[in-house]
Amino acid sequence: MVQIAINSDVAEGFGAWSFGDDAGILEHVTAANVACGFHAGDPSIIREVCTTAAATGVSIGAQVSYRDLAGFGRRFMDIKRTDLVNDLLYQIGALRIFAETAGSRLNYVKAHGALYNAAARHHEHAKAIAEAVATAGRGLPLLCQPDTETWTVALNAGVVPLAEVFADRAYTAEGLLVDRTQPGALITDPQEVADRCLQMATENTVKAITGETVHFTQTPAAICLHSDTPGAANIAARLAATLRQAGVQLVGIGAGT
Amino acid sequence: MVQIAINSDVAEGFGAWSFGDDAGILEHVTAANVACGFHAGDPSIIREVCTTAAATGVSIGAQVSYRDLAGFGRRFMDIKRTDLVNDLLYQIGALRIFAETAGSRLNYVKAHGALYNAAARHHEHAKAIAEAVATAGRGLPLLCQPDTETWTVALNAGVVPLAEVFADRAYTAEGLLVDRTQPGALITDPQEVADRCLQMATENTVKAITGETVHFTQTPAAICLHSDTPGAANIAARLAATLRQAGVQLVGIGAGT
Amino acid sequence: MVQIAINSDVAEGFGAWSFGDDAGILEHVTAANVACGFHAGDPSIIREVCTTAAATGVSIGAQVSYRDLAGFGRRFMDIKRTDLVNDLLYQIGALRIFAETAGSRLNYVKAHGALYNAAARHHEHAKAIAEAVATAGRGLPLLCQPDTETWTVALNAGVVPLAEVFADRAYTAEGLLVDRTQPGALITDPQEVADRCLQMATENTVKAITGETVHFTQTPAAICLHSDTPGAANIAARLAATLRQAGVQLVGIGAGT
Amino acid sequence: MVQIAINSDVAEGFGAWSFGDDAGILEHVTAANVACGFHAGDPSIIREVCTTAAATGVSIGAQVSYRDLAGFGRRFMDIKRTDLVNDLLYQIGALRIFAETAGSRLNYVKAHGALYNAAARHHEHAKAIAEAVATAGRGLPLLCQPDTETWTVALNAGVVPLAEVFADRAYTAEGLLVDRTQPGALITDPQEVADRCLQMATENTVKAITGETVHFTQTPAAICLHSDTPGAANIAARLAATLRQAGVQLVGIGAGT
Repeated sequence: MVQIAINSDVAEGFGAWSFGDDAGILEHVTAANVACGFHAGDPSIIREVCTTAAATGVSIGAQVSYRDLAGFGRRFMDIKRTDLVNDLLYQIGALRIFAETAGSRLNYVKAHGALYNAAARHHEHAKAIAEAVATAGRGLPLLCQPDTETWTVALNAGVVPLAEVFADRAYTAEGLLVDRTQPGALITDPQEVADRCLQMATENTVKAITGETVHFTQTPAAICLHSDTPGAANIAARLAATLRQAGVQLVGIGAGT
Repeated sequence: MVQIAINSDVAEGFGAWSFGDDAGILEHVTAANVACGFHAGDPSIIREVCTTAAATGVSIGAQVSYRDLAGFGRRFMDIKRTDLVNDLLYQIGALRIFAETAGSRLNYVKAHGALYNAAARHHEHAKAIAEAVATAGRGLPLLCQPDTETWTVALNAGVVPLAEVFADRAYTAEGLLVDRTQPGALITDPQEVADRCLQMATENTVKAITGETVHFTQTPAAICLHSDTPGAANIAARLAATLRQAGVQLVGIGAGT
Repeated sequence: MVQIAINSDVAEGFGAWSFGDDAGILEHVTAANVACGFHAGDPSIIREVCTTAAATGVSIGAQVSYRDLAGFGRRFMDIKRTDLVNDLLYQIGALRIFAETAGSRLNYVKAHGALYNAAARHHEHAKAIAEAVATAGRGLPLLCQPDTETWTVALNAGVVPLAEVFADRAYTAEGLLVDRTQPGALITDPQEVADRCLQMATENTVKAITGETVHFTQTPAAICLHSDTPGAANIAARLAATLRQAGVQLVGIGAGT
Repeated sequence: MVQIAINSDVAEGFGAWSFGDDAGILEHVTAANVACGFHAGDPSIIREVCTTAAATGVSIGAQVSYRDLAGFGRRFMDIKRTDLVNDLLYQIGALRIFAETAGSRLNYVKAHGALYNAAARHHEHAKAIAEAVATAGRGLPLLCQPDTETWTVALNAGVVPLAEVFADRAYTAEGLLVDRTQPGALITDPQEVADRCLQMATENTVKAITGETVHFTQTPAAICLHSDTPGAANIAARLAATLRQAGVQLVGIGAGT
């Protein structure tokens, strides 16, 4: 039986500011990438999200970031590896206590925004992520993209990388994401999103923007669905229903470790 | 045999800014109140201090604070209890992972600055501290002053309060600290500090600024030595030597829980 | 001819976070209380709002706050007066350059949130506001409530206080605002808001929640309309239309100084 | 008669943290690069430094930075040009009000740390600096290095660039700074620093680390002396005395504009 997780970013508000429909998203995903306070996520919203996730059996991931509230973690920062390791550990530790307080536990780690993108090819920052996850211990897996520096460095550091694919992004024939600024890069029709995800989950392939069939090098453990698009909760609902109807089992991330 | 801890604030730098002589202090104290990032303490300095403390057998405490880097946590903030609980949990979680990474563990919690002072009489903030410590679990004790709201509320919440006395502060006949702005409030002579601490540790009393003998209501578990006065490391050395020579055993905090 | 301003808080987003409908609000008010970065308002949103305000003839006010992004400036902070003066001057200076860059100028100052509320009775913080405004020079007026410490201290410091009344808040028979937590404290019906404001603007009175007619001690220079309630732009439109139809001239704040 | 300025970074503390000997430095330099709050410099230290500078006739410069308190502005941030322009304008506005409050005025702008280094070759960030300075108006000059993107872009934007040389750094034969990590990159002997500066000021040349004589492409308007080295005030004193004895007139920056 095919198993896959659906993950989305949550707890991305801060203080008086909200961002995205956390409650709606958490009803349909199986894994929550929880902001840890460095790009978003104050302690109260973190706790609220962890409490809901724990109550509904949603896996809890620490979505770690550069320290950049003003930029929402979307700007590359040329921070030294050793300092980055410690910034990430700090976030993992903070998130872990809320996961445990909620009666669950921290299930995985995922990088956010500019750190996610940078580490795909920036050796030092990929190492920082792997080192932080390895240091945090307890066999935490790292959710990331295959065929990246992040993936390779994690493997070498003894961290289990789990592959994710993107629900609403077009792929090139080489299996890379089409740049957001290109026409057709974003897929917004809920059923098209759901159908693509079904193919990715069950056939381990996706149709490229140029028509070719892309074979993934790693079986995806999770589908990432962006939570900040309008109607994200509806898309999540459609996606979950489509996968379940096709017999795909929706599972969490790192729950069995 | 009389046992007591000596605790001091460390990791109070931030980024390029240093504050106090952490290395010198850690040589002589038995318990380190480690800043957790809300009033001071970036992740790298936290890790460095925890590593040193773990290597030398110094207990590691989370010194939690209001979120106020610009004010060093020295300004009262009228924050809601539920938000304060979460702010404190966040700090405890972050500190815990560094204590564990260093091969030690988190031994206790202590409030910093304005939060320490406010909670002594501010019921809601005292409750926030007790609730955060209780929620963090693992029997963490709370280092605080007896005869305060902090102490009473901790007891009621099932948190073990541990009493601390102040090495370099004068006491009133009622057992309160003489206000810092009063003449004679601060005791700066190293030997006088050491002699007073010996009396506090072995006789459970202190001589008031007005001459009376004050009997403490609780046996002190720890002596607090300020780390930001010039020569703090020297005073710590003198204090430790004096106590040891008198047969007092210097112990950590919460190490046996 | 009766003249009055309508003011609302704007630029209260920060980075990726938005807050309120700035564009909608700016179409109908005559004075914009612009967040200055300490409770909300990153430089880019500040510039955008100032540009729109300048283009449409809306007065620009610096809405200064305690330094508390996580609490949106809604939490009292026990900061020293001298430090508070400097924090406020910093915000005024930052806002002024954006007002000037937009081709307008800084017209007035207003305190935000907890600072506004605290200064009404906290002498030191009221003095800090007055001192900052006086120091900023150029005859900047201070928008505040009459019969408060803020008002009195401003007058004594040579700062011109301008009285504001609240469009959507109930008043007690003594002319104070009914506490937000009381039933009936908030008035949400657009036409009721408009009718009350027309009475306040033209008769200098308001009907108390207990039925009495309250006579204001100062003629209101401005009506404050909250921008963070749902439909705030619609309420602003209704209010502006009602006042104009009744022959009230809607004017800016501090534009003539 | 040869004229030149001596500039140094000041106000680099933040809250409880101090950094460098501002008072000692301000006695000997003629231009103060004042931190504006984004990498260092809280409003109270900014005001104190501006007050001293104004009282002693030291020029006041806004030392603008990436928003990075945790990294002291020493880490490159890949921020969008438009956002960077606004971040810099904000800092310039904040600093200007303190310069004016002190009875002086803002005399010039200089980039700090990673922004200074990045803009030397990063076109977009060089443009951001030039655009912010041009937008701030009043003919503010920009202190920077010749033969850089910063210099060229400033000229094209109508901003007057002023050349600075470095008192305590070795130069390559090509006129570039020797990388800090290389042996001999830093010159620490006070008299050697003073002698080199005298040559740079009066002959417009410097002896390269490899022995050649480097001719500067632009006559230096200012010598930059690092303020965070031990004994920086003493070096500043020696440098000022040496230049004066040789008949060099020590002047401010942008004071005549």
